[in-house]
Amino acid sequence: MESTIRSRRSVHGYVDEPLSTETIEEIFEVARFAPSSYNLQPWEYLVLREEAAKTRLQECAYGQEHVTDAAATVVVLGNLDPAAHADRVFDDWLRKEYLPEESVRDELVEMARNWRDRPTETNRIWTTKSAALGAMALMYAAWDRGIASCPMGGFDADAVREEFGTDGYEPVMLVTLGYPDEDCADLSNDRKFRRPVEEIVHFGSFDP
Amino acid sequence: MESTIRSRRSVHGYVDEPLSTETIEEIFEVARFAPSSYNLQPWEYLVLREEAAKTRLQECAYGQEHVTDAAATVVVLGNLDPAAHADRVFDDWLRKEYLPEESVRDELVEMARNWRDRPTETNRIWTTKSAALGAMALMYAAWDRGIASCPMGGFDADAVREEFGTDGYEPVMLVTLGYPDEDCADLSNDRKFRRPVEEIVHFGSFDP
Repeated sequence: MESTIRSRRSVHGYVDEPLSTETIEEIFEVARFAPSSYNLQPWEYLVLREEAAKTRLQECAYGQEHVTDAAATVVVLGNLDPAAHADRVFDDWLRKEYLPEESVRDELVEMARNWRDRPTETNRIWTTKSAALGAMALMYAAWDRGIASCPMGGFDADAVREEFGTDGYEPVMLVTLGYPDEDCADLSNDRKFRRPVEEIVHFGSFDP
Repeated sequence: MESTIRSRRSVHGYVDEPLSTETIEEIFEVARFAPSSYNLQPWEYLVLREEAAKTRLQECAYGQEHVTDAAATVVVLGNLDPAAHADRVFDDWLRKEYLPEESVRDELVEMARNWRDRPTETNRIWTTKSAALGAMALMYAAWDRGIASCPMGGFDADAVREEFGTDGYEPVMLVTLGYPDEDCADLSNDRKFRRPVEEIVHFGSFDP
């Protein structure tokens, strides 16, 4: 795992080799185990492999080439309805004895339903957190199989929503997936720097 | 890696064993390799181990017991200034030939600086994405060493900001860290369900 985290790089250059449905499903079979807020799993993944679909997405992403160069580009969506899966999730908690009794299950479902009335900004941030956790798991699960990825935040979310009919969902991130071109600059260039531990970790008090 | 993703569970029960500074730094030495928007790495990690500090945090987190039961609780912070590290990041890109020439480097720095003028909501979501990617890497890097974690979204962000002086940073998530109590319900109960691949993955078009 450690080597997967350390070795993963954001790759823009891919070889012309498709990703089978089976391979993609294997990756998500792992990625679906990411944690999420109250295990509510507000994530949906729109996987585009056809040229025409990738081109439509590319137009929403300021023409970035790797959107179509990659075998697949995934639109990571966050459900803006926090209670979409609340019944199933808390029934499961009750059945597996994470909860002492049914009344607690009912309170949790009620809590998630009440979250529907929070400000839109709150729910956008809420779903973004869980969807990003899922996206990170997705990229590691892919890299573990030799499939490179590149997360992209630069796209027109409104255009994605309109083009792909994702009303009610926050387009959180695009993630390209494909077998890397071993000669591409992203793999041959020196690795981009990361801020050192002593700068990002603050023990006991915050002193940035 | 796959087994780390599959086996990681959110753990609330910890044994009474401290986490050394060295161990924590080793975890972050891995986690810092997470990707982020334009590699701008807007993450900061406030690591609390002293009882008094964890108790102050617990009061901001509705009294949740694992905040103090864990050996360490980490406040994952997202910098609300997108350009905080822009000069260093794009100098690095130029030096390592990710960019063709200095003018492109300058344009990128300018872009990040212009992002300061985006609506607060946009920058909150922007920093949340990268900080959540970092938090996921952190939890996997920890679990790889047998250190359990639990991400928490339920806390009073304003109280955290006031108590720990994190103005200018979005408190994105709390993450408890510690050696798990092998007898705790989180490890002995059946694993919580995850939505199946055929439900969360949409090939070609979005049809939730």
